[in-house]
Amino acid sequence: MGRNVTQQLIAAHLVSGEMTPGEEIGLTIDQTLTQDATGTLVMQELESLGLDRVRTELSVQYVDHNLLQADEKNAEDHEFLRSACRRYGLWYSKPGNGVSHPTHMQRFGVPGKTLAGSDSHTCAAGSLGMLAVGVGGLEVAMALAGRPLYLRMPEVWGVRLVGELPPWVSAKDVILEMLRRHGVKGGLNRIIEYHGPGLAGLSAMDRHVIANMGAELGATTTVFPSDDAVREFLRAEDRENDFVEITADPDAGYDVTDEIDLSALEPLIARPSSPDNVVPVREVAGEVVSQVVIGSSANPGLRDYLIAAHIVRGRQTSDAVSFDVNPTSREIFSDLTKMGATFDLIASGARIHQSGCLGCIGMGQAPAVGRNSLRTFPRNFPGRSGTREDSVWLCSPETAAAAALTGVIIDPRDLADKLGIDHPELRLPERASVNAAMLVPPLPRAEALREPLSKGPNISSLPDFPPLPDGIDAPVLLKVGDNVSTDEISPAGARALPFRSNIPKLAEFTFTQIDEDYPRRAAEVKDTSGHVVVGGDNYGQGSSREHAAITPRHLGLRAVIAKSFARIHWQNLANFGILALEFADPADYDRIDAGDRLVVNGLREALSGDRELVVRNASKDRDIPVRHRLSRRQLDAVLAGGQIPLLAREGEA
Amino acid sequence: MGRNVTQQLIAAHLVSGEMTPGEEIGLTIDQTLTQDATGTLVMQELESLGLDRVRTELSVQYVDHNLLQADEKNAEDHEFLRSACRRYGLWYSKPGNGVSHPTHMQRFGVPGKTLAGSDSHTCAAGSLGMLAVGVGGLEVAMALAGRPLYLRMPEVWGVRLVGELPPWVSAKDVILEMLRRHGVKGGLNRIIEYHGPGLAGLSAMDRHVIANMGAELGATTTVFPSDDAVREFLRAEDRENDFVEITADPDAGYDVTDEIDLSALEPLIARPSSPDNVVPVREVAGEVVSQVVIGSSANPGLRDYLIAAHIVRGRQTSDAVSFDVNPTSREIFSDLTKMGATFDLIASGARIHQSGCLGCIGMGQAPAVGRNSLRTFPRNFPGRSGTREDSVWLCSPETAAAAALTGVIIDPRDLADKLGIDHPELRLPERASVNAAMLVPPLPRAEALREPLSKGPNISSLPDFPPLPDGIDAPVLLKVGDNVSTDEISPAGARALPFRSNIPKLAEFTFTQIDEDYPRRAAEVKDTSGHVVVGGDNYGQGSSREHAAITPRHLGLRAVIAKSFARIHWQNLANFGILALEFADPADYDRIDAGDRLVVNGLREALSGDRELVVRNASKDRDIPVRHRLSRRQLDAVLAGGQIPLLAREGEA
Repeated sequence: MGRNVTQQLIAAHLVSGEMTPGEEIGLTIDQTLTQDATGTLVMQELESLGLDRVRTELSVQYVDHNLLQADEKNAEDHEFLRSACRRYGLWYSKPGNGVSHPTHMQRFGVPGKTLAGSDSHTCAAGSLGMLAVGVGGLEVAMALAGRPLYLRMPEVWGVRLVGELPPWVSAKDVILEMLRRHGVKGGLNRIIEYHGPGLAGLSAMDRHVIANMGAELGATTTVFPSDDAVREFLRAEDRENDFVEITADPDAGYDVTDEIDLSALEPLIARPSSPDNVVPVREVAGEVVSQVVIGSSANPGLRDYLIAAHIVRGRQTSDAVSFDVNPTSREIFSDLTKMGATFDLIASGARIHQSGCLGCIGMGQAPAVGRNSLRTFPRNFPGRSGTREDSVWLCSPETAAAAALTGVIIDPRDLADKLGIDHPELRLPERASVNAAMLVPPLPRAEALREPLSKGPNISSLPDFPPLPDGIDAPVLLKVGDNVSTDEISPAGARALPFRSNIPKLAEFTFTQIDEDYPRRAAEVKDTSGHVVVGGDNYGQGSSREHAAITPRHLGLRAVIAKSFARIHWQNLANFGILALEFADPADYDRIDAGDRLVVNGLREALSGDRELVVRNASKDRDIPVRHRLSRRQLDAVLAGGQIPLLAREGEA
Repeated sequence: MGRNVTQQLIAAHLVSGEMTPGEEIGLTIDQTLTQDATGTLVMQELESLGLDRVRTELSVQYVDHNLLQADEKNAEDHEFLRSACRRYGLWYSKPGNGVSHPTHMQRFGVPGKTLAGSDSHTCAAGSLGMLAVGVGGLEVAMALAGRPLYLRMPEVWGVRLVGELPPWVSAKDVILEMLRRHGVKGGLNRIIEYHGPGLAGLSAMDRHVIANMGAELGATTTVFPSDDAVREFLRAEDRENDFVEITADPDAGYDVTDEIDLSALEPLIARPSSPDNVVPVREVAGEVVSQVVIGSSANPGLRDYLIAAHIVRGRQTSDAVSFDVNPTSREIFSDLTKMGATFDLIASGARIHQSGCLGCIGMGQAPAVGRNSLRTFPRNFPGRSGTREDSVWLCSPETAAAAALTGVIIDPRDLADKLGIDHPELRLPERASVNAAMLVPPLPRAEALREPLSKGPNISSLPDFPPLPDGIDAPVLLKVGDNVSTDEISPAGARALPFRSNIPKLAEFTFTQIDEDYPRRAAEVKDTSGHVVVGGDNYGQGSSREHAAITPRHLGLRAVIAKSFARIHWQNLANFGILALEFADPADYDRIDAGDRLVVNGLREALSGDRELVVRNASKDRDIPVRHRLSRRQLDAVLAGGQIPLLAREGEA
């Protein structure tokens, strides 16, 4: 039987394991991507690993998250990252150059290559026929050091697209439809591969929108074929030479299948506060809106801004709405400006913000409590906007612009009747405003080796991580429900993000969105077996930030028992020496309460698989069978206290 | 003898007092301006005063300071201000519409009118031949209620301009020359009036630059005649009908005089960390620069951005520099975009930020510790940037753009030799991109009276202010040096500004830039006579924020003894019931130390002028003669605990 695109990409990079779903596989990594919120730790890890120079084909450090610079910490992180790029041989994308995902796609993405990125939306590069995986920072550090990336081989989920999108319906509605159908856990342990005749109507940037939010389905990544649409994209970027055709073999099959008729889709919107609370826009029409934001890597293309600009052109947005636009990259902002769309947006009342992630990661643009904010972003987890009781909705640029004009949620198909606005015909330029001057290339090796690292006072060292004790006798300090996101474990946002390079300080924010008192209680536990957290399904969904493992670990977390884990966070837990256990019987979730005392003895032997693993709930006098899915490689790391102590022991650090 | 422009403007609005320098005069106020960092308190004060509708000809509430929205507080302040404008009959300038000063000049300023603004740079409107005075928020609230504004009649300082500015030298260099000559106290108790043949070469917007930074000289305000340049400006803004010619009588004189030969000026720069540390740019050429920022009300004109865009056009700014540009108003941003300058800036590597104050008030754009940041801003007080040990320089857009290209400080006249850049010829459009749609007009009276105020959880009530006790026996909790700014008393910046409507919370930041422990020590003093602060010369210079009086008062401050006071802060102290005393002999400053216990008895009688005022330093067993300059009106307020309790007692609140 032939191979689908996913299998071709994996086979071409496989260095260990078998391509059987559930098996651990090792892949060579061609390219890496880091951003500033996760990248400072990656650079500190490179320093710990004693690396001389990166061993990938290409690695890029973007600065797109911490751009507000409320005090000196952000600027100092930027200086540190710049110096680390000079020292280790990475490209440095200056603040203001744009969000990593569209920028990487425009300047560096190459069909057929693997990309590991310390950002959960790295999967967006699947739009070019790459195998692009969002992982924790330490995984990227290992890839930078030339080591393979380890994954559990996912199932390949073939989603066949047929038909053509109707007017006022766009790529965002396709991925919202996927979320409506399958929910935020629908893609767990899967790679989504889109195929079929419907692809012909989707540009590479449309595919970016769909691939990007595969992260919200929990998928390992998303893959599109590299076809004429990719060739056309690369040509517009002056990189047609980088084009390689990659399509599924005619007789390829998929582990799981699904089909979407694009012509049957209508404008959709995710209600607060989960990306899978999806309903037709018409169902919620009339809701009053206070803010509309267009931006982020979920709708990053020139066409996404252009259609919004055309909708508001010559009109004034509602008095009662703050209309915020942040272009995702300098290149797109340049094109928008050249085409007159920037002027149209300004004239309609838009607040134009610098190119970057901004509100998408709670870095500014926070709405008032309880007031509706419509955003073209990928996520609306509670509080992610920076506002504790926020009311954030996710939608297409068409739906967003329509609300900006009317001050209420409205199906954009109704604009013709209500305001006489016909569906705009867009003409995209054949050549983009290519300008790579804010991408600083790596220094030559000899010069690089002499570069000092610039460490401001906010760059701390990584804390020490002692090995896992053989027996745990520890209290449950927190019990949480399903789908807890890494935003809730270790928040982003303007208050916490500046401390991303300072673990002790950042740890003070751990879990505080759920329970303000958690850091204090954790500090009170003095025993080396620390404490335990109990979770529901899909524990740790969302962002790839390894801080969500490091900061609770720093506070004494030694084990999480959950119904199931989100992939990246599960890897991060292993990397930083926290034992991730799953309930053998999910019903046992109800047999542990916060405050209970849990006991496991003979952990080393039990984990090696020689005997069943049982956690004793001493408070309820009851045994609870659990299991783990860790590979031997991961187990060694957990027992050693994490990958870094393990490597140190092996003499590599 | 004829009258100068200042005397004509004052005479036309005089309702009490005599135009003799030092005498208290009362003036009718035609227009007011408030911004969001000071305006929320003003609106709370209107509520306390029980006002039905504003009684000025025109009043505008701008939202330009708190634009980052790191959490819900900013957005809630904006909603509150919007509702207060609807309720009380003010114009509302939406976030993103621009900085108050240039926007007011473009849309509302009228020659011959008076303007009271709760922002120290309100004086910028003097560029149009207005009498525009920056005052505390309560003074604006009183003006909104139809009451006169009280000032001590200043001396009029006639500055004669001759000659014409050479290429690469612009309006910013004129005001930097004034600061070089006269320092930050040079304008105390004076109104600066520019006149002479040199005016012919200065556009109205150039005059705005010069008038704006009259605040940095400590002047009560700055006045320019309303002549052809003003007519031309108003014509470009579609408001030629608002033009009124106002020039000095031919035989007018001035209390003090000075002259500047514009043709003899060269590019100047203020070194860190005071606006009067002015040196020629050539003297500091070669200093490495990490950040360049173009923006703020100090260089707000289209030409200021255009010349920077022309200088960097077709070139790339230095790898090592963050080049930040925030257009001051939507109108200017529209014109820049139409003219292609926005594209040139983006292409050169600029980070384009939303229209507003931003870095000028420490709202983002903070530089790294110790790294040089060149800014076209008006102020570089220590820490105002948001970075504790900052290194901020003030200069013209020409000097700023030159540094952005080269990465070092360089006299822009040297660009021709170094980079082959000739002095750009600018062509400004005859008509500006007038677009008032983000200015929401007042509601009709009947509708307004029914409007509710929208108060989010961050809008607190004003604390109670008890009367001044007749005897003070209080410790000196803090002794500070000369020129302490209101930034140091009550900081702006991204951490503190969001609490501008929440006095108890904001009070925790009081004086912490000078002494972190001050709020704690103040809280420990339980006696109702509170505590005392001792200051040097020009105490309370800088911003008009009344928070610098209210927050220390909330912490128990009852008296400040200083060598001299900056005007606006001195008024604010009286308005909020803090006794401002001056040393009769400045040498006595050295006879009080922090921690000393000061005693005054029979305060009421003594303040009424019936006997000499003596403060006893009980710790040093020594009498210290002091004086006050308060009018009877101000004394009544101080004794009552402030203007608000006084009005309450009079049955007006």
